[in-house]
Amino acid sequence: MVGSVQSVSAPDTKRFDVGIAGAGQLARMTALAAWPLGITVAVLGGPGDPAAGVAHGLVEGDWRDADAVAALGRACRVVTLENEFVDALALAHVAAAGTPVRPDPASIAIVQDKARQKDLLASAGLPLPHYLLVEEAASLDAAGRDLGWPLMLKRRRLGYDGYGNVTCVNIDAARDAFSKLDDGDGVLVERWVPFERELAVMVARRPGGQALAYPVVETIQRDHVCRRVDVPASGSQNQLTQANEIALAATHAALGIGVTGVELFALASGEVLINEIAPRPHNSGHFTIEACETSQFENHLRGVLDLPLGPVNLRAPAAVMVNILGSRNGPAEPNRQALTVPGAHLHLYDKREVRVRRKMGHVTALGATVEEARERAEQAAAAVDL
Amino acid sequence: MVGSVQSVSAPDTKRFDVGIAGAGQLARMTALAAWPLGITVAVLGGPGDPAAGVAHGLVEGDWRDADAVAALGRACRVVTLENEFVDALALAHVAAAGTPVRPDPASIAIVQDKARQKDLLASAGLPLPHYLLVEEAASLDAAGRDLGWPLMLKRRRLGYDGYGNVTCVNIDAARDAFSKLDDGDGVLVERWVPFERELAVMVARRPGGQALAYPVVETIQRDHVCRRVDVPASGSQNQLTQANEIALAATHAALGIGVTGVELFALASGEVLINEIAPRPHNSGHFTIEACETSQFENHLRGVLDLPLGPVNLRAPAAVMVNILGSRNGPAEPNRQALTVPGAHLHLYDKREVRVRRKMGHVTALGATVEEARERAEQAAAAVDL
Repeated sequence: MVGSVQSVSAPDTKRFDVGIAGAGQLARMTALAAWPLGITVAVLGGPGDPAAGVAHGLVEGDWRDADAVAALGRACRVVTLENEFVDALALAHVAAAGTPVRPDPASIAIVQDKARQKDLLASAGLPLPHYLLVEEAASLDAAGRDLGWPLMLKRRRLGYDGYGNVTCVNIDAARDAFSKLDDGDGVLVERWVPFERELAVMVARRPGGQALAYPVVETIQRDHVCRRVDVPASGSQNQLTQANEIALAATHAALGIGVTGVELFALASGEVLINEIAPRPHNSGHFTIEACETSQFENHLRGVLDLPLGPVNLRAPAAVMVNILGSRNGPAEPNRQALTVPGAHLHLYDKREVRVRRKMGHVTALGATVEEARERAEQAAAAVDL
Repeated sequence: MVGSVQSVSAPDTKRFDVGIAGAGQLARMTALAAWPLGITVAVLGGPGDPAAGVAHGLVEGDWRDADAVAALGRACRVVTLENEFVDALALAHVAAAGTPVRPDPASIAIVQDKARQKDLLASAGLPLPHYLLVEEAASLDAAGRDLGWPLMLKRRRLGYDGYGNVTCVNIDAARDAFSKLDDGDGVLVERWVPFERELAVMVARRPGGQALAYPVVETIQRDHVCRRVDVPASGSQNQLTQANEIALAATHAALGIGVTGVELFALASGEVLINEIAPRPHNSGHFTIEACETSQFENHLRGVLDLPLGPVNLRAPAAVMVNILGSRNGPAEPNRQALTVPGAHLHLYDKREVRVRRKMGHVTALGATVEEARERAEQAAAAVDL
């Protein structure tokens, strides 16, 4: 008599406290954080997804399917996200049917469109790279003159980990990129920013506006994928304070609820610009599980349920998180070699297929210094061959 | 299409890495620790038990039933415990059928019998209160003369949280207690120990003998139930070192695998005596989830799977754990009032029925000092009325 997760017909009553429109690694870690608090979580996905087994409940379906999102809404008292690509109209229907969606679908609709997100942040007076919404290829020449080459062209929706972004050095490259990235309503064109470092700040916020910003971290990308997160970030105190304040202001402007991930550029001039925001827990906040008094996942739950937020202070002088990225394509097996490194905290996501660059897990190490933590985390991640 | 845990017929193949003979709060917290490591855990119990939903699998049945224990063994690659009362012969059958049981059933058989446990510890040369196995009531008088009044009488098996222990001030009380506690093979009789404080040490150990002792903690009981755990324990460094060494030696003597909980008495003289040991994670080790580099639950899994143990050092100067005990009888609802106290880490066990003195959850707080942590933890636990 061995149990496993089975589908049963959807009930009319609200069976779960929180529904997450997705079942990937962010939903998985949120579901893990829910158990000690007595919070029940349902995720939306398939039985093989990372969060399927660990959540209290699984609503079988695809977050891209409005009917599945509606079923999640019927089963849960509050609905939230693990990615910003869920159809905002489907979420608005959930809200209209009486289930709160946090953040609000109107906010999600803005944030998921990079052009509207930029407009929102600019109108809040926040510093960001110069940008234009270019609606037809014929305007690219003018954009190049206005912003200066090279240009960064970005698909308005559904871009992640560099997919959907193209750096263009001249008009021919820009025209080519435009034709690939335009979904009929134009392409976001940004001045290319010669940043010195990339920073990120997680902000936890309640519906009433109470908000807390986690310590500023430095993110190190490789091929547009986050490879490593160093905590605390390097840089002047003034620059880190700016980053914190900008992240808080951006989250308030976007009416973020639960955790909002804010990515920033640190310039050699000392200036800090917002790159983009994500209305959900974020890869660059995984370090908070071990390194902060309250993890981003617990505070996401607290925020969306309008419970008091937990303190976000560091509990160690330094922490480093390294992503475990796939190095091949094929079926995946758990690999626990990282445990041979003392002080390495291993987080596998139980993805059944490994793909090149796919996020399969991560390792966090604490230390007296960033250097010490980095050595441990890198050594542990290198031991996991996936 | 909402999923829930359902029973399906037991498969012939090993579906789970670790099977736990039980599904209470210790199994629950062990199962939670398993997910990030990609370790699959099955628990043995009913669908309403604390660990039923959070584990990868549920083998429906009772740990008191040898057939159910055998079914657990068939489903899992290694079997372990969350309580020491599981029939050792049923576990020996699991081992004989080819599934390792950790700790070894022979060790469990000794530890679960308080008289044989005392003999084991005494023959290892470890300091413990004077004791006798009294096989008939007629020998109580002589035991009183040998050990001195008052006497502590203990049921040999199945005692916990003070159930099965009686302090007797004279021969009439001792005869009365004997008739209640004797299961036909006598009663353990101990000299009553005028201890100053009670200590506990969790020890993690691998099959090959590699072992690590967690920092010594001080346990504060109320009505024989652990109420609070202070970390680090008060007392001289010499006394704490003694406690650590005794705990390690006791675990080696008992061939503990995974986590062994060792309870000790600290005497005003500076002496340290063993009270008893438990071959499993322990209530007095819950603080390790937030306060130590590796939790007792993760190290229990690492130990029983013969993976490298994680470091057991404190990550905060001080920590205090307070049990949330039932104050009434009836159905239970989640109560998250503890979250109003900043820095309180809430752990609810999702028990559906509250009973007076029943462990319903716990709260841990970290601090710069034990006093600071204690104030937070006590305030948070007091806010939870269950």
